[in-house]
Amino acid sequence: MEEQTIVRVAVDAMGGDNAPAEIIKGTVLAVCEDNRVHAVLVGKEEVIREQLKQYTYDRERITVVHAEEVITNEEAPVMAVRRKKDSSIVKAMTLVKNNEADAFVSAGSTGAVLVGAQLIVGRLPGVERPPLAPLLPTSKGVSLLIDCGANVDARASHLVQFAKMGSVYMENVIGIKNPRVAIVNIGAEEEKGNALVKETFPLLKNCNEINFIGSIEAREIPSGYADVIVCEAFVGNVILKLYEGLAATLIGEIKKGMLSSLRSKLGGLLVKPALKETLKDLDSSKYGGAPMLGLKGLVVKTHGNSKSDEVKNSILQCIAFKEQNISEKIKSSIMVNEND
Amino acid sequence: MEEQTIVRVAVDAMGGDNAPAEIIKGTVLAVCEDNRVHAVLVGKEEVIREQLKQYTYDRERITVVHAEEVITNEEAPVMAVRRKKDSSIVKAMTLVKNNEADAFVSAGSTGAVLVGAQLIVGRLPGVERPPLAPLLPTSKGVSLLIDCGANVDARASHLVQFAKMGSVYMENVIGIKNPRVAIVNIGAEEEKGNALVKETFPLLKNCNEINFIGSIEAREIPSGYADVIVCEAFVGNVILKLYEGLAATLIGEIKKGMLSSLRSKLGGLLVKPALKETLKDLDSSKYGGAPMLGLKGLVVKTHGNSKSDEVKNSILQCIAFKEQNISEKIKSSIMVNEND
Repeated sequence: MEEQTIVRVAVDAMGGDNAPAEIIKGTVLAVCEDNRVHAVLVGKEEVIREQLKQYTYDRERITVVHAEEVITNEEAPVMAVRRKKDSSIVKAMTLVKNNEADAFVSAGSTGAVLVGAQLIVGRLPGVERPPLAPLLPTSKGVSLLIDCGANVDARASHLVQFAKMGSVYMENVIGIKNPRVAIVNIGAEEEKGNALVKETFPLLKNCNEINFIGSIEAREIPSGYADVIVCEAFVGNVILKLYEGLAATLIGEIKKGMLSSLRSKLGGLLVKPALKETLKDLDSSKYGGAPMLGLKGLVVKTHGNSKSDEVKNSILQCIAFKEQNISEKIKSSIMVNEND
Repeated sequence: MEEQTIVRVAVDAMGGDNAPAEIIKGTVLAVCEDNRVHAVLVGKEEVIREQLKQYTYDRERITVVHAEEVITNEEAPVMAVRRKKDSSIVKAMTLVKNNEADAFVSAGSTGAVLVGAQLIVGRLPGVERPPLAPLLPTSKGVSLLIDCGANVDARASHLVQFAKMGSVYMENVIGIKNPRVAIVNIGAEEEKGNALVKETFPLLKNCNEINFIGSIEAREIPSGYADVIVCEAFVGNVILKLYEGLAATLIGEIKKGMLSSLRSKLGGLLVKPALKETLKDLDSSKYGGAPMLGLKGLVVKTHGNSKSDEVKNSILQCIAFKEQNISEKIKSSIMVNEND
């Protein structure tokens, strides 16, 4: 019988709008759902232990590491990571750095997670910039938007690395064979675009290890036209945020419309279960949070407002990452780049 | 009694997916709806006259100018504008240039319209780059997204001009007093952003003629958080296209959801009229097309798939532009900039 992998996930018990309750609940759920998961809850020990009391789970598989401090969203990330050595983020990332954990999951300050990942966990050899790559729901499933991180004003060589890392992730973690890679552009033709895209396009076209299908206009993203959507972080952030904001606004307006008359209220009651099902399909949280790639270990940033279910899925997503040996695969895909 | 303004609008009869039928119908509707409108239909005279026969309208107020050629979406814009001197776009723009028309409306090739506007109509003195500024529907009404044109890799000084021109337009054409101006950014704080935004932010902050409210994250755009949304064209194009694509996908998925069971089908029938009303509120075509600002005359680009109603509204939007003397107002707002 094959020996079972153990995946050690450090979880920021103090990060996010619903911490610590939902984070701890999500961690317990992950441990119960998959016995490969060993979790380390990092944060105020007393608070964590108090919360854990209410659950039944395999006590061997959740340990607690005390951290006195918490980094808030309001703090300047670099300063916070440098100064708050006893914060849950810094302590949990140090576990990954020291190979006492394979992965780190946090719903806390995105800035601090991005900074800590680079300063503490560190980049894989050859990786120029580690991208943050959230999954976007589409009508066909899910696409990886890479990069939405801190790398604004990125260079063409960074974008090529993003394309490679994104392909490795989608193929091995999400299970999409030969994932289609496209670069965000303002038109389909190769000569379209800004200076960065014009420089990057031929590099991607000549990259043998990826399945590059050309440009993607933003209007084609929701239909699932590509599996890996490459862009620099400013554009990626705009896409991600608009995706969230527009979906929320549209659904809100539709709900308002349904409440506008007795007739539509009745109709609303009847369509509600079907719509709930539809909107669930468009909810990417079932895949877990956004992985930050190219690091010596996995860092997963889940939404600040994550509930236990998204926390659970973020933890479970670390299993495939470790089992598929994604860091090694990324390293060798980047190395090919270096030797081109 | 005040003398009535006459607004002379040259219309590209041959541009767009539904040309010439819907373009000509929209022109007739505009002339019938407002007697300040005098239209010049530019295109194949025989075809236009044949179409016009079916309508009843004041024959004095629609003239026809023959143009033998048509510029298609597939042609390289600069080449097409230079070579096809007898095309509807080039001929209509020449009317504006020679002050034989006040404005030009086209549903044709965006590239050719952008190029022709600069090469033929020409920029107002002091204007560095003329932006294309579509209106986005929001839950509060409509916002101006400026720029979505050809000015990728714009400079900070361009963005400041966009902010001023957009403010003049929203205040005087759409009627929003003291319009709120925000710059698209990846966080609310002044220190956030890419190099361009960091350079532009303080310039906008120090600009007395506009009501600058700071950064806008893409997620806040659909809620109507700002009236004038400033960005460079690459980002603007991504926002515009994603807006259209995501709305279409979501509405499609919701419709599919409603058809998924007998119960939801019945409910769907009941909510349909209310939803139609809601979606109409989110339809920016009632405001007309996207104005291109900073030119010696107004150029309006309507959607390629415009039907008669959007064409009509695009023509009617030229009235306020002329009556409010927008070109003069833009000129003086830009001049203030020059003397700062």
